[in-house]
Amino acid sequence: MPEQTRRLNRRAFFAASSMSLAGMALRTETSAAGAQTLSARVQGVRAMTFDVFGTVVDWRSSIIAEGQALGARKGIDADWAKFADRWRAGYRPAMGRVRSGELGWTKIDDLHRIILDGLVEGEEFGLSGLSEAELDDLNRVWHRLRPWPDTVAGLTRLRKRYTLATLSNGNVALLVNMAKNAGLPWDAVLSAELAGHYKPDREVYLKAADLLGLEPSQVMMVAAHKGDLRASAKVGFRTGYVPRPTEFAPDVERDLTPDPDFDVVGTDFNDFARKLGL
Amino acid sequence: MPEQTRRLNRRAFFAASSMSLAGMALRTETSAAGAQTLSARVQGVRAMTFDVFGTVVDWRSSIIAEGQALGARKGIDADWAKFADRWRAGYRPAMGRVRSGELGWTKIDDLHRIILDGLVEGEEFGLSGLSEAELDDLNRVWHRLRPWPDTVAGLTRLRKRYTLATLSNGNVALLVNMAKNAGLPWDAVLSAELAGHYKPDREVYLKAADLLGLEPSQVMMVAAHKGDLRASAKVGFRTGYVPRPTEFAPDVERDLTPDPDFDVVGTDFNDFARKLGL
Repeated sequence: MPEQTRRLNRRAFFAASSMSLAGMALRTETSAAGAQTLSARVQGVRAMTFDVFGTVVDWRSSIIAEGQALGARKGIDADWAKFADRWRAGYRPAMGRVRSGELGWTKIDDLHRIILDGLVEGEEFGLSGLSEAELDDLNRVWHRLRPWPDTVAGLTRLRKRYTLATLSNGNVALLVNMAKNAGLPWDAVLSAELAGHYKPDREVYLKAADLLGLEPSQVMMVAAHKGDLRASAKVGFRTGYVPRPTEFAPDVERDLTPDPDFDVVGTDFNDFARKLGL
Repeated sequence: MPEQTRRLNRRAFFAASSMSLAGMALRTETSAAGAQTLSARVQGVRAMTFDVFGTVVDWRSSIIAEGQALGARKGIDADWAKFADRWRAGYRPAMGRVRSGELGWTKIDDLHRIILDGLVEGEEFGLSGLSEAELDDLNRVWHRLRPWPDTVAGLTRLRKRYTLATLSNGNVALLVNMAKNAGLPWDAVLSAELAGHYKPDREVYLKAADLLGLEPSQVMMVAAHKGDLRASAKVGFRTGYVPRPTEFAPDVERDLTPDPDFDVVGTDFNDFARKLGL
Protein backbone atom coordinates (compact mmCIF):
# COMPACT_ATOMS: atom_id res chain seq x y z
CA MET A 1 0.00 0.00 0.00
CA PRO A 2 2.60 2.57 -0.98
CA GLU A 3 0.04 5.21 -1.97
CA GLN A 4 -1.73 4.98 1.33
CA THR A 5 1.55 5.38 3.17
CA ARG A 6 2.43 8.43 1.08
CA ARG A 7 -0.96 9.89 1.84
CA LEU A 8 -0.58 9.41 5.56
CA ASN A 9 2.89 10.93 5.53
CA ARG A 10 1.64 13.95 3.66
CA ARG A 11 -1.28 14.31 6.03
CA ALA A 12 1.01 14.10 9.03
CA PHE A 13 3.17 16.82 7.47
CA PHE A 14 0.24 19.15 6.97
CA ALA A 15 -1.21 18.42 10.35
CA ALA A 16 2.18 19.36 11.79
CA SER A 17 2.38 22.61 9.81
CA SER A 18 -1.06 23.75 10.78
CA MET A 19 -0.42 22.87 14.40
CA SER A 20 2.77 24.87 14.30
CA LEU A 21 0.94 27.89 12.83
CA ALA A 22 -1.67 27.60 15.57
CA GLY A 23 1.13 27.41 18.10
CA MET A 24 2.71 30.62 16.81
CA ALA A 25 -0.56 32.50 17.02
CA LEU A 26 -1.08 31.17 20.51
CA ARG A 27 2.38 32.20 21.70
CA THR A 28 1.95 35.69 20.27
CA GLU A 29 -1.33 36.18 22.04
CA THR A 30 0.01 34.69 25.25
CA SER A 31 3.02 36.97 25.39
CA ALA A 32 0.81 39.99 24.67
CA ALA A 33 -1.54 39.15 27.49
CA GLY A 34 1.02 37.83 29.93
CA ALA A 35 -1.10 34.71 30.42
CA GLN A 36 -3.12 32.43 28.18
CA THR A 37 -6.26 34.33 27.30
CA LEU A 38 -9.49 32.54 26.64
CA SER A 39 -9.24 33.23 22.91
CA ALA A 40 -5.78 31.67 22.85
CA ARG A 41 -7.06 28.63 24.69
CA VAL A 42 -9.78 28.02 22.14
CA GLN A 43 -7.67 28.95 19.12
CA GLY A 44 -8.03 26.33 16.42
CA VAL A 45 -11.01 24.57 17.99
CA ARG A 46 -13.38 23.46 15.21
CA ALA A 47 -15.69 21.03 16.95
CA MET A 48 -17.16 20.45 20.38
CA THR A 49 -18.05 16.99 21.65
CA PHE A 50 -20.54 16.78 24.48
CA ASP A 51 -21.06 14.41 27.30
CA VAL A 52 -24.82 13.86 27.43
CA PHE A 53 -26.16 12.23 30.64
CA GLY A 54 -26.02 14.96 33.24
CA THR A 55 -24.32 17.52 30.99
CA VAL A 56 -26.97 17.96 28.28
CA VAL A 57 -29.96 16.25 29.85
CA ASP A 58 -31.27 16.03 33.38
CA TRP A 59 -31.58 12.26 33.75
CA ARG A 60 -32.68 12.40 37.40
CA SER A 61 -35.73 14.62 37.15
CA SER A 62 -36.73 12.95 33.85
CA ILE A 63 -36.72 9.47 35.38
CA ILE A 64 -38.53 10.68 38.50
CA ALA A 65 -41.25 12.29 36.36
CA GLU A 66 -41.73 9.21 34.17
CA GLY A 67 -41.67 6.96 37.23
CA GLN A 68 -44.37 9.03 38.89
CA ALA A 69 -46.52 8.90 35.76
CA LEU A 70 -46.03 5.14 35.50
CA GLY A 71 -46.79 4.77 39.21
CA ALA A 72 -50.01 6.75 38.84
CA ARG A 73 -51.12 4.59 35.88
CA LYS A 74 -50.22 1.27 37.50
CA GLY A 75 -50.89 2.08 41.14
CA ILE A 76 -47.25 1.69 42.16
CA ASP A 77 -46.29 3.75 45.17
CA ALA A 78 -42.50 3.87 44.93
CA ASP A 79 -39.79 6.34 45.93
CA TRP A 80 -39.02 7.34 42.35
CA ALA A 81 -36.10 9.57 43.29
CA LYS A 82 -34.47 6.64 45.04
CA PHE A 83 -35.31 4.47 42.04
CA ALA A 84 -33.62 6.93 39.66
CA ASP A 85 -30.55 7.12 41.87
CA ARG A 86 -30.30 3.35 42.22
CA TRP A 87 -30.65 2.83 38.47
CA ARG A 88 -27.95 5.37 37.76
CA ALA A 89 -25.74 3.93 40.49
CA GLY A 90 -25.56 0.66 38.54
CA TYR A 91 -24.34 2.41 35.41
CA ARG A 92 -20.66 2.83 36.18
CA PRO A 93 -20.15 -0.71 37.57
CA ALA A 94 -21.97 -2.13 34.51
CA MET A 95 -19.66 -0.23 32.15
CA GLY A 96 -16.76 -1.32 34.31
CA ARG A 97 -17.59 -4.94 33.48
CA VAL A 98 -17.30 -4.07 29.78
CA ARG A 99 -14.16 -1.98 30.25
CA SER A 100 -12.49 -4.79 32.19
CA GLY A 101 -13.38 -7.34 29.50
CA GLU A 102 -15.67 -9.35 31.79
CA LEU A 103 -18.57 -8.55 29.43
CA GLY A 104 -18.11 -8.28 25.68
CA TRP A 105 -19.25 -5.06 24.02
CA THR A 106 -22.73 -4.34 25.34
CA LYS A 107 -24.82 -1.30 24.44
CA ILE A 108 -25.99 1.04 27.17
CA ASP A 109 -29.59 0.10 26.37
CA ASP A 110 -28.74 -3.45 27.37
CA LEU A 111 -26.71 -2.40 30.42
CA HIS A 112 -29.62 -0.22 31.55
CA ARG A 113 -31.92 -3.19 31.16
CA ILE A 114 -29.63 -5.50 33.14
CA ILE A 115 -29.63 -2.97 35.99
CA LEU A 116 -33.40 -2.46 35.72
CA ASP A 117 -33.99 -6.21 35.82
CA GLY A 118 -31.96 -6.32 39.03
CA LEU A 119 -34.13 -3.57 40.55
CA VAL A 120 -37.27 -5.45 39.53
CA GLU A 121 -36.00 -8.68 41.06
CA GLY A 122 -35.04 -6.86 44.26
CA GLU A 123 -38.75 -6.01 44.69
CA GLU A 124 -37.89 -2.76 46.48
CA PHE A 125 -39.88 -0.56 44.10
CA GLY A 126 -42.92 -2.75 43.41
CA LEU A 127 -42.15 -3.21 39.72
CA SER A 128 -42.62 -6.96 39.47
CA GLY A 129 -46.14 -6.60 38.05
CA LEU A 130 -44.94 -4.76 34.94
CA SER A 131 -45.23 -6.56 31.64
CA GLU A 132 -42.27 -7.04 29.33
CA ALA A 133 -43.60 -4.27 27.07
CA GLU A 134 -43.91 -1.93 30.06
CA LEU A 135 -40.38 -2.74 31.23
CA ASP A 136 -39.03 -2.21 27.72
CA ASP A 137 -40.78 1.15 27.57
CA LEU A 138 -39.49 2.10 31.02
CA ASN A 139 -35.97 1.16 29.92
CA ARG A 140 -36.36 3.59 27.05
CA VAL A 141 -36.86 6.51 29.41
CA TRP A 142 -33.16 7.11 28.71
CA HIS A 143 -34.14 7.87 25.09
CA ARG A 144 -36.59 10.49 26.36
CA LEU A 145 -34.49 12.37 28.92
CA ARG A 146 -35.22 16.07 29.04
CA PRO A 147 -32.61 18.73 28.40
CA TRP A 148 -31.61 21.27 31.01
CA PRO A 149 -33.48 24.56 30.49
CA ASP A 150 -30.42 26.24 28.89
CA THR A 151 -29.38 23.30 26.68
CA VAL A 152 -31.14 23.94 23.38
CA ALA A 153 -30.57 27.71 23.40
CA GLY A 154 -26.90 27.32 24.32
CA LEU A 155 -26.23 24.63 21.71
CA THR A 156 -27.95 26.72 19.07
CA ARG A 157 -25.57 29.60 19.84
CA LEU A 158 -22.47 27.37 19.89
CA ARG A 159 -23.47 25.71 16.63
CA LYS A 160 -23.02 28.97 14.74
CA ARG A 161 -19.25 28.63 15.04
CA TYR A 162 -18.56 25.01 15.94
CA THR A 163 -19.47 21.56 14.74
CA LEU A 164 -21.42 20.03 17.62
CA ALA A 165 -21.41 16.31 18.31
CA THR A 166 -22.44 14.08 21.15
CA LEU A 167 -19.68 11.98 22.69
CA SER A 168 -21.59 9.87 25.12
CA ASN A 169 -21.48 6.37 26.49
CA GLY A 170 -25.10 6.17 25.33
CA ASN A 171 -25.55 4.10 22.19
CA VAL A 172 -26.26 5.78 18.86
CA ALA A 173 -29.94 4.82 18.74
CA LEU A 174 -30.52 6.20 22.23
CA LEU A 175 -28.82 9.48 21.33
CA VAL A 176 -30.62 9.80 18.00
CA ASN A 177 -34.01 9.18 19.60
CA MET A 178 -33.20 11.60 22.42
CA ALA A 179 -32.15 14.32 19.98
CA LYS A 180 -35.31 13.92 17.93
CA ASN A 181 -37.48 13.93 21.03
CA ALA A 182 -35.79 16.91 22.70
CA GLY A 183 -34.86 18.93 19.60
CA LEU A 184 -31.11 18.83 20.22
CA PRO A 185 -29.32 20.42 17.26
CA TRP A 186 -26.37 18.06 16.78
CA ASP A 187 -24.26 18.07 13.65
CA ALA A 188 -23.22 14.50 14.39
CA VAL A 189 -24.17 11.80 16.85
CA LEU A 190 -20.96 10.18 18.05
CA SER A 191 -20.86 7.54 20.74
CA ALA A 192 -18.55 5.27 22.66
CA GLU A 193 -20.33 2.56 20.65
CA LEU A 194 -18.42 3.62 17.53
CA ALA A 195 -15.11 2.96 19.30
CA GLY A 196 -16.24 -0.22 21.03
CA HIS A 197 -14.91 1.28 24.26
CA TYR A 198 -16.53 3.24 27.07
CA LYS A 199 -15.32 6.61 28.33
CA PRO A 200 -12.95 7.39 29.88
CA ASP A 201 -10.99 4.95 27.67
CA ARG A 202 -8.78 7.03 25.39
CA GLU A 203 -9.99 5.17 22.29
CA VAL A 204 -13.36 6.95 22.54
CA TYR A 205 -11.88 10.44 22.25
CA LEU A 206 -9.38 9.48 19.57
CA LYS A 207 -12.10 7.79 17.50
CA ALA A 208 -14.27 10.90 17.70
CA ALA A 209 -11.46 13.19 16.50
CA ASP A 210 -10.64 10.76 13.71
CA LEU A 211 -14.27 10.56 12.56
CA LEU A 212 -14.51 14.35 12.58
CA GLY A 213 -11.32 14.54 10.50
CA LEU A 214 -9.67 16.72 13.13
CA GLU A 215 -6.59 16.69 15.31
CA PRO A 216 -7.47 16.20 19.03
CA SER A 217 -6.36 19.81 19.68
CA GLN A 218 -9.11 21.00 17.32
CA VAL A 219 -11.81 19.37 19.44
CA MET A 220 -13.16 20.53 22.80
CA MET A 221 -14.79 18.05 25.14
CA VAL A 222 -17.65 19.67 27.06
CA ALA A 223 -18.83 17.90 30.19
CA ALA A 224 -20.16 18.33 33.70
CA HIS A 225 -17.76 15.64 34.89
CA LYS A 226 -14.14 16.39 35.54
CA GLY A 227 -12.93 12.83 34.94
CA ASP A 228 -14.31 12.90 31.40
CA LEU A 229 -12.53 16.20 30.71
CA ARG A 230 -9.24 15.04 32.21
CA ALA A 231 -9.30 11.86 30.12
CA SER A 232 -9.99 13.84 26.95
CA ALA A 233 -7.20 16.32 27.76
CA LYS A 234 -4.74 13.44 28.08
CA VAL A 235 -5.15 12.72 24.36
CA GLY A 236 -4.96 16.41 23.44
CA PHE A 237 -8.56 17.67 23.53
CA ARG A 238 -9.40 21.12 24.80
CA THR A 239 -11.82 21.13 27.72
CA GLY A 240 -15.04 22.94 28.55
CA TYR A 241 -16.53 22.49 32.02
CA VAL A 242 -20.20 23.10 32.74
CA PRO A 243 -20.92 21.82 36.25
CA ARG A 244 -24.50 20.71 36.92
CA PRO A 245 -24.92 21.01 40.69
CA THR A 246 -28.36 19.38 40.75
CA GLU A 247 -27.49 16.36 38.60
CA PHE A 248 -27.33 13.95 41.54
CA ALA A 249 -29.38 13.59 44.70
CA PRO A 250 -29.11 16.57 47.08
CA ASP A 251 -27.19 14.53 49.65
CA VAL A 252 -24.41 13.54 47.22
CA GLU A 253 -21.36 15.68 47.96
CA ARG A 254 -19.23 16.53 44.96
CA ASP A 255 -16.33 18.90 44.45
CA LEU A 256 -17.41 21.07 41.52
CA THR A 257 -14.35 23.34 41.61
CA PRO A 258 -12.94 23.59 38.08
CA ASP A 259 -9.41 22.29 37.49
CA PRO A 260 -7.14 25.28 36.78
CA ASP A 261 -6.26 23.94 33.34
CA PHE A 262 -9.80 23.57 32.01
CA ASP A 263 -9.96 25.89 28.99
CA VAL A 264 -13.49 27.26 29.35
CA VAL A 265 -15.89 27.13 32.29
CA GLY A 266 -19.55 28.10 32.14
CA THR A 267 -22.33 27.97 34.70
CA ASP A 268 -24.66 26.66 31.98
CA PHE A 269 -24.63 26.40 28.16
CA ASN A 270 -25.76 29.99 27.68
CA ASP A 271 -23.02 31.29 29.95
CA PHE A 272 -20.58 28.96 28.19
CA ALA A 273 -21.54 30.40 24.78
CA ARG A 274 -21.30 33.94 26.18
CA LYS A 275 -17.76 33.25 27.41
CA LEU A 276 -16.87 32.33 23.84
CA GLY A 277 -18.43 35.53 22.50
CA LEU A 278 -21.45 33.77 21.03
CA MET B 1 -21.44 -13.75 29.63
CA PRO B 2 -24.70 -15.45 30.54
CA GLU B 3 -26.59 -12.20 31.09
CA GLN B 4 -25.65 -10.88 27.70
CA THR B 5 -26.80 -14.09 26.07
CA ARG B 6 -30.13 -13.89 27.91
CA ARG B 7 -30.47 -10.31 26.79
CA LEU B 8 -29.89 -11.16 23.16
CA ASN B 9 -32.35 -14.02 23.31
CA ARG B 10 -34.99 -11.76 24.78
CA ARG B 11 -34.32 -9.14 22.14
CA ALA B 12 -34.58 -11.72 19.38
CA PHE B 13 -37.89 -12.85 20.84
CA PHE B 14 -39.33 -9.35 20.86
CA ALA B 15 -37.96 -8.55 17.44
CA ALA B 16 -39.73 -11.69 16.23
CA SER B 17 -43.04 -10.74 17.89
CA SER B 18 -43.04 -7.23 16.49
CA MET B 19 -42.14 -8.53 13.05
CA SER B 20 -44.96 -10.99 13.23
CA LEU B 21 -47.42 -8.24 14.21
CA ALA B 22 -46.19 -6.12 11.31
CA GLY B 23 -46.63 -9.13 9.04
CA MET B 24 -50.24 -9.62 10.15
CA ALA B 25 -51.09 -5.99 9.49
CA LEU B 26 -49.43 -6.24 6.13
CA ARG B 27 -51.33 -9.37 5.12
CA THR B 28 -54.63 -7.80 6.16
CA GLU B 29 -54.03 -4.72 4.12
CA THR B 30 -52.79 -6.73 1.18
CA SER B 31 -55.83 -8.95 1.03
CA ALA B 32 -58.13 -5.92 1.30
CA ALA B 33 -56.43 -4.16 -1.58
CA GLY B 34 -55.75 -7.22 -3.70
CA ALA B 35 -52.12 -6.14 -4.01
CA GLN B 36 -49.53 -4.66 -1.74
CA THR B 37 -50.52 -1.05 -1.28
CA LEU B 38 -47.92 1.61 -0.68
CA SER B 39 -48.93 1.94 2.96
CA ALA B 40 -48.45 -1.79 3.44
CA ARG B 41 -45.03 -1.61 1.83
CA VAL B 42 -43.85 1.09 4.22
CA GLN B 43 -45.58 -0.39 7.28
CA GLY B 44 -43.19 -0.49 10.19
CA VAL B 45 -40.53 1.73 8.60
CA ARG B 46 -39.02 3.96 11.27
CA ALA B 47 -35.90 5.32 9.61
CA MET B 48 -34.66 6.20 6.16
CA THR B 49 -31.02 5.96 5.19
CA PHE B 50 -29.89 7.99 2.21
CA ASP B 51 -27.26 7.53 -0.38
CA VAL B 52 -25.65 10.96 -0.75
CA PHE B 53 -23.47 11.45 -3.86
CA GLY B 54 -25.94 11.82 -6.71
CA THR B 55 -29.03 11.14 -4.60
CA VAL B 56 -28.90 14.06 -2.15
CA VAL B 57 -26.28 16.29 -3.78
CA ASP B 58 -25.45 17.11 -7.37
CA TRP B 59 -21.73 16.34 -7.38
CA ARG B 60 -21.27 17.03 -11.09
CA SER B 61 -22.55 20.59 -11.31
CA SER B 62 -20.91 21.42 -7.95
CA ILE B 63 -17.48 20.28 -9.12
CA ILE B 64 -17.87 22.03 -12.47
CA ALA B 65 -18.80 25.29 -10.71
CA GLU B 66 -15.89 25.12 -8.27
CA GLY B 67 -13.53 24.12 -11.09
CA GLN B 68 -14.61 27.10 -13.14
CA ALA B 69 -14.10 29.45 -10.19
CA LEU B 70 -10.66 27.96 -9.51
CA GLY B 71 -9.81 28.20 -13.21
CA ALA B 72 -10.80 31.87 -13.29
CA ARG B 73 -8.65 32.62 -10.23
CA LYS B 74 -5.62 30.67 -11.41
CA GLY B 75 -5.92 31.17 -15.16
CA ILE B 76 -6.53 27.47 -15.84
CA ASP B 77 -8.55 26.82 -18.98
CA ALA B 78 -9.76 23.25 -18.46
CA ASP B 79 -12.82 21.25 -19.49
CA TRP B 80 -14.25 21.14 -15.97
CA ALA B 81 -17.16 18.89 -16.91
CA LYS B 82 -14.69 16.34 -18.23
CA PHE B 83 -12.59 16.85 -15.09
CA ALA B 84 -15.62 16.17 -12.86
CA ASP B 85 -16.51 13.06 -14.83
CA ARG B 86 -12.95 11.73 -14.77
CA TRP B 87 -12.65 12.33 -11.03
CA ARG B 88 -15.89 10.52 -10.37
CA ALA B 89 -14.93 7.72 -12.76
CA GLY B 90 -12.01 6.85 -10.49
CA TYR B 91 -14.26 6.49 -7.46
CA ARG B 92 -15.66 3.02 -7.98
CA PRO B 93 -12.32 1.41 -8.97
CA ALA B 94 -10.66 3.06 -5.93
CA MET B 95 -13.31 1.64 -3.60
CA GLY B 96 -12.95 -1.66 -5.40
CA ARG B 97 -9.31 -1.78 -4.28
CA VAL B 98 -10.50 -1.43 -0.67
CA ARG B 99 -13.36 -3.90 -1.10
CA SER B 100 -11.00 -6.50 -2.60
CA GLY B 101 -8.52 -6.06 0.24
CA GLU B 102 -5.76 -4.68 -2.02
CA LEU B 103 -5.88 -1.44 0.02
CA GLY B 104 -6.53 -1.40 3.76
CA TRP B 105 -9.42 0.73 4.97
CA THR B 106 -9.02 4.13 3.33
CA LYS B 107 -11.40 7.06 3.77
CA ILE B 108 -13.09 8.54 0.72
CA ASP B 109 -11.23 11.81 1.32
CA ASP B 110 -8.01 9.91 0.76
CA LEU B 111 -9.37 7.94 -2.20
CA HIS B 112 -10.53 11.20 -3.78
CA ARG B 113 -7.06 12.61 -3.27
CA ILE B 114 -5.36 9.58 -4.83
CA ILE B 115 -7.57 9.98 -7.91
CA LEU B 116 -7.01 13.75 -7.99
CA ASP B 117 -3.24 13.26 -7.77
CA GLY B 118 -3.50 10.96 -10.77
CA LEU B 119 -5.38 13.63 -12.72
CA VAL B 120 -2.76 16.23 -11.75
CA GLU B 121 0.08 13.94 -12.85
CA GLY B 122 -1.72 13.19 -16.13
CA GLU B 123 -1.42 16.93 -16.93
CA GLU B 124 -4.64 16.83 -18.97
CA PHE B 125 -6.35 19.59 -16.97
CA GLY B 126 -3.43 21.97 -16.32
CA LEU B 127 -3.50 21.48 -12.54
CA SER B 128 0.22 20.91 -11.97
CA GLY B 129 0.78 24.51 -10.86
CA LEU B 130 -1.56 24.20 -7.87
CA SER B 131 -0.01 24.32 -4.42
CA GLU B 132 -0.57 21.61 -1.87
CA ALA B 133 -3.00 23.88 -0.02
CA GLU B 134 -4.92 24.51 -3.24
CA LEU B 135 -5.08 20.81 -4.04
CA ASP B 136 -6.22 20.04 -0.52
CA ASP B 137 -8.95 22.66 -0.84
CA LEU B 138 -9.98 21.32 -4.26
CA ASN B 139 -10.16 17.82 -2.79
CA ARG B 140 -12.59 19.16 -0.21
CA VAL B 141 -15.04 20.22 -2.90
CA TRP B 142 -16.74 16.92 -1.98
CA HIS B 143 -17.45 18.44 1.46
CA ARG B 144 -19.16 21.37 -0.25
CA LEU B 145 -21.37 19.62 -2.80
CA ARG B 146 -24.68 21.35 -3.37
CA PRO B 147 -28.02 19.65 -2.79
CA TRP B 148 -30.54 19.12 -5.59
CA PRO B 149 -33.18 21.88 -5.52
CA ASP B 150 -35.76 19.59 -3.88
CA THR B 151 -33.43 18.01 -1.31
CA VAL B 152 -33.79 20.21 1.77
CA ALA B 153 -37.54 20.71 1.41
CA GLY B 154 -38.14 17.01 0.81
CA LEU B 155 -35.97 15.89 3.72
CA THR B 156 -37.68 18.39 6.00
CA ARG B 157 -41.04 16.82 5.13
CA LEU B 158 -39.80 13.25 5.54
CA ARG B 159 -38.17 14.07 8.87
CA LYS B 160 -41.55 14.76 10.44
CA ARG B 161 -42.29 11.04 10.45
CA TYR B 162 -38.97 9.27 10.00
CA THR B 163 -35.50 9.30 11.47
CA LEU B 164 -33.26 10.43 8.62
CA ALA B 165 -29.65 9.34 8.30
CA THR B 166 -27.01 9.40 5.65
CA LEU B 167 -25.69 6.02 4.54
CA SER B 168 -22.94 7.02 2.20
CA ASN B 169 -19.52 5.79 1.21
CA GLY B 170 -18.38 9.31 2.10
CA ASN B 171 -16.51 9.49 5.39
CA VAL B 172 -18.17 10.97 8.46
CA ALA B 173 -16.21 14.25 8.40
CA LEU B 174 -17.10 14.82 4.76
CA LEU B 175 -20.78 14.19 5.45
CA VAL B 176 -20.83 16.35 8.57
CA ASN B 177 -19.16 19.25 6.80
CA MET B 178 -21.48 18.87 3.82
CA ALA B 179 -24.57 18.86 6.04
CA LYS B 180 -23.44 21.99 7.87
CA ASN B 181 -22.60 23.74 4.62
CA ALA B 182 -25.79 22.77 2.80
CA GLY B 183 -28.23 22.76 5.72
CA LEU B 184 -29.16 19.09 5.41
CA PRO B 185 -31.42 18.13 8.33
CA TRP B 186 -30.04 14.70 9.27
CA ASP B 187 -30.88 13.02 12.54
CA ALA B 188 -27.71 10.96 12.24
CA VAL B 189 -24.68 10.87 10.00
CA LEU B 190 -23.95 7.22 9.23
CA SER B 191 -21.26 6.12 6.85
CA ALA B 192 -19.60 3.08 5.36
CA GLU B 193 -16.65 4.24 7.48
CA LEU B 194 -18.45 3.03 10.61
CA ALA B 195 -18.63 -0.50 9.19
CA GLY B 196 -15.13 -0.48 7.71
CA HIS B 197 -16.71 -1.67 4.45
CA TYR B 198 -17.90 0.13 1.33
CA LYS B 199 -21.36 -0.21 -0.15
CA PRO B 200 -22.67 -2.42 -1.59
CA ASP B 201 -21.06 -4.73 1.00
CA ARG B 202 -23.85 -6.04 3.22
CA GLU B 203 -21.95 -5.07 6.38
CA VAL B 204 -22.69 -1.40 5.70
CA TYR B 205 -26.47 -1.82 5.74
CA LEU B 206 -26.46 -4.20 8.69
CA LYS B 207 -24.24 -1.86 10.71
CA ALA B 208 -26.58 1.07 10.01
CA ALA B 209 -29.64 -0.85 11.20
CA ASP B 210 -27.78 -2.02 14.28
CA LEU B 211 -26.64 1.51 15.16
CA LEU B 212 -30.19 2.79 14.72
CA GLY B 213 -31.44 0.01 17.01
CA LEU B 214 -33.80 -1.25 14.32
CA GLU B 215 -34.47 -4.40 12.37
CA PRO B 216 -33.48 -4.10 8.69
CA SER B 217 -37.20 -4.22 7.76
CA GLN B 218 -37.72 -1.02 9.77
CA VAL B 219 -35.23 0.89 7.62
CA MET B 220 -35.71 2.15 4.06
CA MET B 221 -32.69 2.79 1.88
CA VAL B 222 -33.28 5.76 -0.42
CA ALA B 223 -31.01 6.08 -3.42
CA ALA B 224 -30.77 7.11 -7.05
CA HIS B 225 -28.80 3.95 -7.76
CA LYS B 226 -30.50 0.61 -8.21
CA GLY B 227 -27.49 -1.45 -7.15
CA ASP B 228 -27.43 0.25 -3.76
CA LEU B 229 -31.15 -0.45 -3.27
CA ARG B 230 -30.85 -4.07 -4.41
CA ALA B 231 -27.96 -4.69 -2.00
CA SER B 232 -29.89 -3.15 0.88
CA ALA B 233 -33.00 -5.21 0.03
CA LYS B 234 -30.92 -8.40 0.21
CA VAL B 235 -30.41 -7.82 3.95
CA GLY B 236 -34.05 -6.87 4.48
CA PHE B 237 -34.22 -3.10 3.98
CA ARG B 238 -37.18 -1.47 2.33
CA THR B 239 -36.29 0.53 -0.77
CA GLY B 240 -37.02 4.05 -2.03
CA TYR B 241 -35.91 4.96 -5.52
CA VAL B 242 -35.39 8.56 -6.58
CA PRO B 243 -33.70 8.54 -9.99
CA ARG B 244 -31.57 11.57 -10.82
CA PRO B 245 -31.46 11.68 -14.63
CA THR B 246 -28.91 14.51 -14.79
CA GLU B 247 -26.44 13.06 -12.28
CA PHE B 248 -23.98 11.93 -14.94
CA ALA B 249 -22.80 13.46 -18.20
CA PRO B 250 -25.54 13.75 -20.84
CA ASP B 251 -23.95 11.07 -23.03
CA VAL B 252 -23.97 8.42 -20.29
CA GLU B 253 -26.81 6.01 -21.02
CA ARG B 254 -28.48 4.54 -17.97
CA ASP B 255 -31.60 2.50 -17.45
CA LEU B 256 -33.58 4.43 -14.86
CA THR B 257 -36.63 2.12 -14.95
CA PRO B 258 -37.54 1.21 -11.37
CA ASP B 259 -37.34 -2.45 -10.38
CA PRO B 260 -40.90 -3.73 -9.82
CA ASP B 261 -40.13 -4.57 -6.19
CA PHE B 262 -38.87 -1.16 -5.11
CA ASP B 263 -41.25 -0.04 -2.37
CA VAL B 264 -41.53 3.67 -3.14
CA VAL B 265 -40.52 5.62 -6.22
CA GLY B 266 -40.39 9.40 -6.46
CA THR B 267 -39.29 11.76 -9.20
CA ASP B 268 -37.59 13.89 -6.54
CA PHE B 269 -37.63 14.18 -2.72
CA ASN B 270 -40.78 16.32 -2.70
CA ASP B 271 -42.61 13.82 -4.87
CA PHE B 272 -41.23 11.02 -2.70
CA ALA B 273 -42.59 12.70 0.46
CA ARG B 274 -45.92 13.30 -1.26
CA LYS B 275 -46.19 9.61 -2.15
CA LEU B 276 -45.82 8.88 1.56
CA GLY B 277 -48.55 11.38 2.45
CA LEU B 278 -46.13 13.95 3.86
